[in-house]
Amino acid sequence: MAVVMDQAALTAFLARDFAQVAEDFTVTRVEEDLLEVRLNVEARHLRPGGTVSGPSMFALADVAMYLAILARLGPVALAVTTNCSIDFMRKPAAGRALVAQARVLKLGRVLAVGDVLIWSEGETAPVARAGLTYSIPPAQ
Amino acid sequence: MAVVMDQAALTAFLARDFAQVAEDFTVTRVEEDLLEVRLNVEARHLRPGGTVSGPSMFALADVAMYLAILARLGPVALAVTTNCSIDFMRKPAAGRALVAQARVLKLGRVLAVGDVLIWSEGETAPVARAGLTYSIPPAQ
Amino acid sequence: MAVVMDQAALTAFLARDFAQVAEDFTVTRVEEDLLEVRLNVEARHLRPGGTVSGPSMFALADVAMYLAILARLGPVALAVTTNCSIDFMRKPAAGRALVAQARVLKLGRVLAVGDVLIWSEGETAPVARAGLTYSIPPAQ
Amino acid sequence: MAVVMDQAALTAFLARDFAQVAEDFTVTRVEEDLLEVRLNVEARHLRPGGTVSGPSMFALADVAMYLAILARLGPVALAVTTNCSIDFMRKPAAGRALVAQARVLKLGRVLAVGDVLIWSEGETAPVARAGLTYSIPPAQ
Repeated sequence: MAVVMDQAALTAFLARDFAQVAEDFTVTRVEEDLLEVRLNVEARHLRPGGTVSGPSMFALADVAMYLAILARLGPVALAVTTNCSIDFMRKPAAGRALVAQARVLKLGRVLAVGDVLIWSEGETAPVARAGLTYSIPPAQ
Repeated sequence: MAVVMDQAALTAFLARDFAQVAEDFTVTRVEEDLLEVRLNVEARHLRPGGTVSGPSMFALADVAMYLAILARLGPVALAVTTNCSIDFMRKPAAGRALVAQARVLKLGRVLAVGDVLIWSEGETAPVARAGLTYSIPPAQ
Repeated sequence: MAVVMDQAALTAFLARDFAQVAEDFTVTRVEEDLLEVRLNVEARHLRPGGTVSGPSMFALADVAMYLAILARLGPVALAVTTNCSIDFMRKPAAGRALVAQARVLKLGRVLAVGDVLIWSEGETAPVARAGLTYSIPPAQ
Repeated sequence: MAVVMDQAALTAFLARDFAQVAEDFTVTRVEEDLLEVRLNVEARHLRPGGTVSGPSMFALADVAMYLAILARLGPVALAVTTNCSIDFMRKPAAGRALVAQARVLKLGRVLAVGDVLIWSEGETAPVARAGLTYSIPPAQ
């Protein structure tokens, strides 16, 4: 699947249309089969004990898949998450950023499906995995 | 399943152990088969367009199930979410609080499983549903 | 949501269009908010130890939601399962039928979403729960 | 993670302990990071129209993850599926076998988590994906 928005275009899109959360995320790789996003962990993402909260990992998985779809559909898309099944497998390392890699497995007329793996930066064992489905709005 | 922490005890627990998010949530009902929590929607929970974000709905489902488990196990539990499968079905009404109802379907030795329905306050059609699994730590 | 196919109509539909599995299932209740199906357990549904297999429980959840959607849409529908998240919570009782209750939570233009609970007949603690999404084909 | 049961050992295990379904499946690859199983499609796996049924794809995903866990734990394990979230993305090609590839992402003391991709043999676009969790029984 060809990429129609690159790292710079996706970063500008986030800053303009999702200003509230744009500083949380850094798009680090955009390839045909893979999109990588970094969660720049701040105090507001943490649970007692200093590890990243579940909702913050969910948000990271969700934005990674959203950007992976946009990279292929372009900025006109108003794709909406319809399902996410997320497994929390290990406690994230304290004081580390998280890195998510998303791949799109299906980009259909009405649904897009993909999965995401999340790691603490610099670790090899994943902390979470998710499968996500997005609904694609009809072309105008 | 008998309730061992009531509305006041759960509210105090949230305020003490989850101070960072405690003001987001109000425990509104604690019964044998049902726990209800309200998300007090603020600007930080919204997406462009004024509707509650997916991560905020995930956070609400997660805290509702967590409190439903604690209500039965008591405050010593350090239960951890291991899986959440959430369906986003309708756009929440703008400018409305969200209400989640959680029920525990299994409270086992190592795993607790339940589900959650979420509505915009005052509406009857649910905006989201989730199934969640928590890992229960071994008794000390 | 009004019911447009009743118990007899759904049973005839299964027999005609799903002859291969029709004898596995008995439609036992069709109401506005609830559809109930029974899995008539045979040797082919069992795992070593005599309990019903995971795939048989999946099949039961899937058919229950399918029939609950058809009950509202009528027999023209070619709805297709797009996602199922199923939790296996307890071992089914040996030598017992399983009963599934399905409810439709959303019946949209392109997607239908609902959930299913499954019990061993005569028991009160559920053995499995599932959330399912079906894709609804465009009207002809 | 080291492999302690190879292709021959897993095949013999299936034939002995799951005689009822053993002929449905052929273990085709067992590597450190990947286990591959083939569903030998027969009439009983098909839906009207000649494509493989959802329950048959679920069964394939489930057995692939089960064998991937056994390959690492050995034949003593009585692992039990606790959750499966499966996305059906494309209709399988008629008259083709299905191939599943499973990878174990976490092998913990009480839970194992992994994911599975399924293709029609000879095709490149996956027909289904699943995330699965197994409960690992305490060592005797």
